[in-house]
Amino acid sequence: MAEFSAKDIDALHHLYRINLINSCSGYKSANLIGTKSTDGVSNVAVFSSVTHLGSNPALLGFFLRPTTVMRNTYHNIKETGTYTINHIHEGILDDAHHTSAKYDGSISEFDMTQLEEDYKANFLAPFVKGCPVQMAMSYVEEYPIKANNTILVIGKIEQLYVPDALLEKDGYIDLSQGKVATINGLDGYAIPELKVRQDYQRPKDTNDK
Amino acid sequence: MAEFSAKDIDALHHLYRINLINSCSGYKSANLIGTKSTDGVSNVAVFSSVTHLGSNPALLGFFLRPTTVMRNTYHNIKETGTYTINHIHEGILDDAHHTSAKYDGSISEFDMTQLEEDYKANFLAPFVKGCPVQMAMSYVEEYPIKANNTILVIGKIEQLYVPDALLEKDGYIDLSQGKVATINGLDGYAIPELKVRQDYQRPKDTNDK
Repeated sequence: MAEFSAKDIDALHHLYRINLINSCSGYKSANLIGTKSTDGVSNVAVFSSVTHLGSNPALLGFFLRPTTVMRNTYHNIKETGTYTINHIHEGILDDAHHTSAKYDGSISEFDMTQLEEDYKANFLAPFVKGCPVQMAMSYVEEYPIKANNTILVIGKIEQLYVPDALLEKDGYIDLSQGKVATINGLDGYAIPELKVRQDYQRPKDTNDK
Repeated sequence: MAEFSAKDIDALHHLYRINLINSCSGYKSANLIGTKSTDGVSNVAVFSSVTHLGSNPALLGFFLRPTTVMRNTYHNIKETGTYTINHIHEGILDDAHHTSAKYDGSISEFDMTQLEEDYKANFLAPFVKGCPVQMAMSYVEEYPIKANNTILVIGKIEQLYVPDALLEKDGYIDLSQGKVATINGLDGYAIPELKVRQDYQRPKDTNDK
């Protein structure tokens, strides 16, 4: 069993530390966030921090570091108020991951990969063509995180597209039917198969165990 | 292709909506958060919103709704300043999911399931025995989210335990070696197999595609 104290973690080589700490929270969502600048340059970047905040209203959050490539995404969201979230799937693992490369804001990652822009419903920001779940988002609010100078960006789902084959009768989206990816750490990708849907849980009688 | 506008989502039956919106963000982390009350009652509850915030300092965040069962977790964290995060794995899927049942704060979920408390390093909060990744966390700060009255709780990793078999030379934790679970929606569980680790990406020459 390996054991790391906070002091040990501080003292690690920085590459070892980012691998360790990026993989210790568990599996992550694998999304491409699409935006457009006011100059008309489209941008798409991989994010692994998109998180469900609540269903009513339908809100999702994600974290970004202002000092990384993601600042193009942030800048565009702030200027236009809109973005898209698109699920990474088995067919685009290489190109999706390549969007983590640090391109200048004048270059569209759509031009540097086989990822294709998709425009729908008069929405300014580009969707990523062929992604099994596509969402048009509107910026709601943000929280600067004092502890490490990241930013939590919260958006509302304005439009949600999902193929009928993934959608069950009770509203559940079976991501495994769309070969949706999940991320382990900074660079590991898996395509999960659904194992079980559990039932809604009620307390047991305290005499049982 | 199914399509839902914000207005459509608002008008859905609430059970359909929570299934749809809980599964539309992609795969989620599957964790058990362990706490102890000042009365000495241990608590453990499933969370699917634990997210990496940064590696230096090593910070993780999670969201909770003050109006749900998770309030025991929140109350204990606020009173004691400490909690544990433990990865759900294939061997405990049923008991881990059962911790979503709404027990009174005087009842420990450890007494109502086969999950076992594990105490280490003089840490007040219980770890969950046998989990492939176990972390002792200290409360750092919280942000009340105005948009939907949830709370973002941020904690620092004080102690991290991971079996040697999961830990690669560069610090990467291979979650699939630990049969770690991921959550799809409210109630779907998968045990992913790692497919690929991608290389660090640098920009391509803009003459290539």
